[in-house]
Amino acid sequence: MNSNPAEEYVSYFRPEIDAMSGYTPGEQPKVAGLLKLNTNESPYPPSPGVREAFGSFDVARLRLYPDPMAQELREYIGGMFGLPADCVITGNGSDDILNIAIRCFCDSERPAACLDPSYSLYPTLCGLQGTECIRIPLAEDFSLPVDLPARAARANLLLIARPNAPTGNSCSRTILAEICRNFQGIVLIDEAYADFASDNCADFVSRFPNVIVCRTFSKSRNLAGLRFGFALAHPKIIEGLMKMKDSYNVSMLTQVLALASLKDPAYFADCVAKIRLAREMLTLGLYDLGFRAVESETNFLFASPPDGDGRRFFEELRKRNILVRYFPGPVTGKWVRITVGTTESVSRVFLAAREIYREFGQEVYSLDSGRLVP
Amino acid sequence: MNSNPAEEYVSYFRPEIDAMSGYTPGEQPKVAGLLKLNTNESPYPPSPGVREAFGSFDVARLRLYPDPMAQELREYIGGMFGLPADCVITGNGSDDILNIAIRCFCDSERPAACLDPSYSLYPTLCGLQGTECIRIPLAEDFSLPVDLPARAARANLLLIARPNAPTGNSCSRTILAEICRNFQGIVLIDEAYADFASDNCADFVSRFPNVIVCRTFSKSRNLAGLRFGFALAHPKIIEGLMKMKDSYNVSMLTQVLALASLKDPAYFADCVAKIRLAREMLTLGLYDLGFRAVESETNFLFASPPDGDGRRFFEELRKRNILVRYFPGPVTGKWVRITVGTTESVSRVFLAAREIYREFGQEVYSLDSGRLVP
Repeated sequence: MNSNPAEEYVSYFRPEIDAMSGYTPGEQPKVAGLLKLNTNESPYPPSPGVREAFGSFDVARLRLYPDPMAQELREYIGGMFGLPADCVITGNGSDDILNIAIRCFCDSERPAACLDPSYSLYPTLCGLQGTECIRIPLAEDFSLPVDLPARAARANLLLIARPNAPTGNSCSRTILAEICRNFQGIVLIDEAYADFASDNCADFVSRFPNVIVCRTFSKSRNLAGLRFGFALAHPKIIEGLMKMKDSYNVSMLTQVLALASLKDPAYFADCVAKIRLAREMLTLGLYDLGFRAVESETNFLFASPPDGDGRRFFEELRKRNILVRYFPGPVTGKWVRITVGTTESVSRVFLAAREIYREFGQEVYSLDSGRLVP
Repeated sequence: MNSNPAEEYVSYFRPEIDAMSGYTPGEQPKVAGLLKLNTNESPYPPSPGVREAFGSFDVARLRLYPDPMAQELREYIGGMFGLPADCVITGNGSDDILNIAIRCFCDSERPAACLDPSYSLYPTLCGLQGTECIRIPLAEDFSLPVDLPARAARANLLLIARPNAPTGNSCSRTILAEICRNFQGIVLIDEAYADFASDNCADFVSRFPNVIVCRTFSKSRNLAGLRFGFALAHPKIIEGLMKMKDSYNVSMLTQVLALASLKDPAYFADCVAKIRLAREMLTLGLYDLGFRAVESETNFLFASPPDGDGRRFFEELRKRNILVRYFPGPVTGKWVRITVGTTESVSRVFLAAREIYREFGQEVYSLDSGRLVP
């Protein structure tokens, strides 16, 4: 036995794990007065129904294991979509479900495919599973590329975020249906942001036996801290996914509060409506300032400043105590992703952008007076 | 598109997943008056400190993501063991950590090894990872077999539950240290029940750079519903495990309440002491009835009735509204695993056993009077 075990350290990790870069958590700064618009959290608290369920929860129950099947939740969620409970799986956030799906359908001989740019977790999860991730560039306008079916053909699992992140747009339902119909593998439609969109693909689950539709409570349900997500699919798919999940993957409190949130649809609809209004305001405001912005179906806006320098805009906003998300790269580097919060926070972003890009000389309206100002 | 998509279903699962039956967690029945002694939950509620932290938690915070690193908890836990925070990883229950470890160290060329009987989740997790699980039978008295090092030599990860489940005994610290010193791979010591034992191996983490020690809050901390576990290891090991975990694997409420539980050591010690007392009472009572029982270092008792028919004992107890755990098989089938609850529940088990095995004619003492009764 050595007195300094650190010197004896030998790595027994799978080589893929050692080769991966260290885990970098998203920025969660604790700066007073900082406007945090970098992780697409909701500006609104959980619903009154959630607060009530929390207040009446008997802490003594926590000595027992949660329902490993989350049966009550699965039945309720199924009912919302006109599906039986055995078409539903619940997860510790939808990241849990993405991970389960990649582990179920992918290995060294069964690649996954995803779009680029899209949710950056997909290739990371593929790396952890030791599976190839075929990355298919989006068209220049961030729509689905026409060669997607050809390029994804080798994959066993096709991951499509709809609406997409970080771009915020939704692909065509018709084209996606055509892809699902012809793809020889599983299509996972990640609808993390679908509650903010004008339509969704939940109905694909009853139309196509190879489709998984995934949702989260971290955005539209104002419950990122809770860790809850679910997926809908053919009962045979759910049965297989269930084998992979941790037995007790969803905690008791998460089950109780997620159910309470579902039972409070009016509050939910109200929060979503307010965010959509603020989104419209920010989009039009930035257009007026000469920005490009993708028409968003989410609670964030992907926007490119007049000079096309995403990093500079990110840094200038940071100086003004506004934190947004910047993704370096030849395509994404021209843009920033701004979480849409309240109309107040949107105003702060707009006024900051107006100040930063004043030299570009667009004619802009003051928010206060409505008068034309230089 | 077919009108009945079920008929079109084609499996795209990895063949290993289709071939598996999946892990079956212990029954969670909803029968009134049932004494539930099958999943080793604590009979006591979470600590007053947990209740207090729950009461003062601001539900509005749930709109935000939890700390992905659980930094406050990692520092506190590290402090308890005289280790820095970077020697600690937190999980959504210790099952999460077991899963992470198997995914980090095992693949088709890197088998795992575990004892038999031991925690039945180990081989299940190996199956899901597509890795071989070398199962090494315990000696007849449930101690470590002398050929363990030879039989485990091919493995890259050796999983040892100490105390072991379902047998309840602890292996020798000296022998285990010797194994850790010589094993060419990672030794994961699963200390789910260590708080009920007379010693533990947490100190191995500073002695051996290839040891992971794992703990759970589901048993001794009375918080099975919360889903919290942690592991201690060399910083390099923790760094690698961190890459594999879900970014936000531990929910905000779980982080808050787990920390509160740790800050209430007196209540914790009191619950553990009461369970150890009840365990002693049950063990000696069953000895008197002619049972064999493994001297337990846990909150359960592995006991074999006078006729050696574990299934019959399980079924007779079930008729009397007492649910324990029965594991079929040539070795385990002679035994049942009984969770040790309060002294009251232990009395119910004892009296039921006395009634069931009356015909065996042991001289037994009545609990009520202390008189010798036929």
